[in-house]
Amino acid sequence: MQIGIIGLGKMGFNLALNLQRNGYEVVAQDVNTDFVTKIGQEGITTALSVKELCNKLIDRKVIWLMVPAGEIVDGVITSLIPFLEKNDIIIDGGNSNYKDSKRRYSQLKELGIDFLDCGTSGGTSGALNGACTMIGGDAPVFEYVAQVFKDISVENGHLHTGAAGSGHFTKMVHNGIEYGMMQSIAEGFEVFEHSEFDIDFEKTAKLFNHGSVVRSWLMELTENAFSKDPKLDGIKGIMHSSGEGKWTLETALDLGVPTPVIALSIMMRYRSQMQDTFSGKVVAALRNEFGGHAVEKNE
Amino acid sequence: MQIGIIGLGKMGFNLALNLQRNGYEVVAQDVNTDFVTKIGQEGITTALSVKELCNKLIDRKVIWLMVPAGEIVDGVITSLIPFLEKNDIIIDGGNSNYKDSKRRYSQLKELGIDFLDCGTSGGTSGALNGACTMIGGDAPVFEYVAQVFKDISVENGHLHTGAAGSGHFTKMVHNGIEYGMMQSIAEGFEVFEHSEFDIDFEKTAKLFNHGSVVRSWLMELTENAFSKDPKLDGIKGIMHSSGEGKWTLETALDLGVPTPVIALSIMMRYRSQMQDTFSGKVVAALRNEFGGHAVEKNE
Repeated sequence: MQIGIIGLGKMGFNLALNLQRNGYEVVAQDVNTDFVTKIGQEGITTALSVKELCNKLIDRKVIWLMVPAGEIVDGVITSLIPFLEKNDIIIDGGNSNYKDSKRRYSQLKELGIDFLDCGTSGGTSGALNGACTMIGGDAPVFEYVAQVFKDISVENGHLHTGAAGSGHFTKMVHNGIEYGMMQSIAEGFEVFEHSEFDIDFEKTAKLFNHGSVVRSWLMELTENAFSKDPKLDGIKGIMHSSGEGKWTLETALDLGVPTPVIALSIMMRYRSQMQDTFSGKVVAALRNEFGGHAVEKNE
Repeated sequence: MQIGIIGLGKMGFNLALNLQRNGYEVVAQDVNTDFVTKIGQEGITTALSVKELCNKLIDRKVIWLMVPAGEIVDGVITSLIPFLEKNDIIIDGGNSNYKDSKRRYSQLKELGIDFLDCGTSGGTSGALNGACTMIGGDAPVFEYVAQVFKDISVENGHLHTGAAGSGHFTKMVHNGIEYGMMQSIAEGFEVFEHSEFDIDFEKTAKLFNHGSVVRSWLMELTENAFSKDPKLDGIKGIMHSSGEGKWTLETALDLGVPTPVIALSIMMRYRSQMQDTFSGKVVAALRNEFGGHAVEKNE
């Protein structure tokens, strides 16, 4: 079976190799020609444009997008449409917002083009060696490419989650859970760091991965991180994010359900990106106003 | 080697069997004679009093306490002291507050009695089949019984965490992390439950355990729970707690470090135990006062 891949960043590149290893005939394209050259050296057929990519795919085309979420996905889909026929399949394997995926599904449906939204977890190593994929869209379309998802995922690591959008929705909530779990682990080590005891972080994380209730892949990554830098002296505690935690919180707000831990995990990321806060200035000023409490002056 | 065990509840009972299976000569005692009878049927030597227990232990006694945290631990230790000699070892394997463990270590030190605080994770199945143990106390005392911890724990599942108190401190923080991880998982499924999609919770939890970033023992337990009751219709969402999450938060407050996710996890447990809240009444009343917004009246 042939599969077209558009987007050869860290995830798409590894996914292409994963598909190739599983016997698929991959045709790969990226706007960055360096990436195209690099994957060509892996023995994968390449294309320099979406037109060329489509020309190299025969029969019912299956094209996997692994490009950054947002307008780029719409741009790629728009550029593909002239070269697609009825029942060709676009799979969006990136981190798109599920509302966008629902919209794209409907827009493509009007043109007779099939669309699947695929949330992909497991990081770059998962993309290469076995991912966790959650796929939304019409059941017959999913069935047509089910073997692909099975092949590139770990055992039991793929699921048709339901209607269009549900794949990216499931992945979004997965990331929300991930935010809270990471923040909770991090807070525990914050307490260790400030405690009266001389806790060995790497040994403790390793211990926690052997028989404890909190054993998890994230705790294994915690152990890895401390094995490289015992007190993480080499990095700053600035936490970036890529949107899915925020979307989970926005969805919870729209649904009117309480998710305080996920909310605070996101707020702590935002706080970490600020050197000082205006809210801190306001509270300090107010304490000074009503109680004469000292404020720390800007130099 | 002989080991005395005091406290034959779910954890102590299973630990006794674990020790027996590992070739230790266990002498078991509990104030509940039913438990004593029951463990006697497993071929374990029993005692009906701490005196009898101590009489059945020769040489340097090793006595493992697995009793509820708090005054009961002090009571058992006080009752033991008359029958102990210098360098006998008391191990507190329960969920004691680390400050109590520091105090008990010092009090027993004055009498020449050795004390280790052992945080025990992994639940009742861990106690039976291989626990995760984190042990605080003097290194030579730990070394004397290190093989015991090694034998009853999973591989790499025991650690001398440092000075007296550090074992229970590490276990306390472990439980704080556990609270946040559980709440985060739970909030994700709250969003699923209220979403527009027909998410299969068991299948999704199972998927999350295969290749995803959030794979963990807690997610496996989530999968188990949904396999028994797909929507958890049979239970109420009332979340009890046994103290260690609260102690983690109290410690964070004493240390002046932010742990918002652990804090909110505990608050959500307290909220779940209330049918209605007074704070809810206050906010409803205030909205009515300033904006004439409707309140829901008590019948």
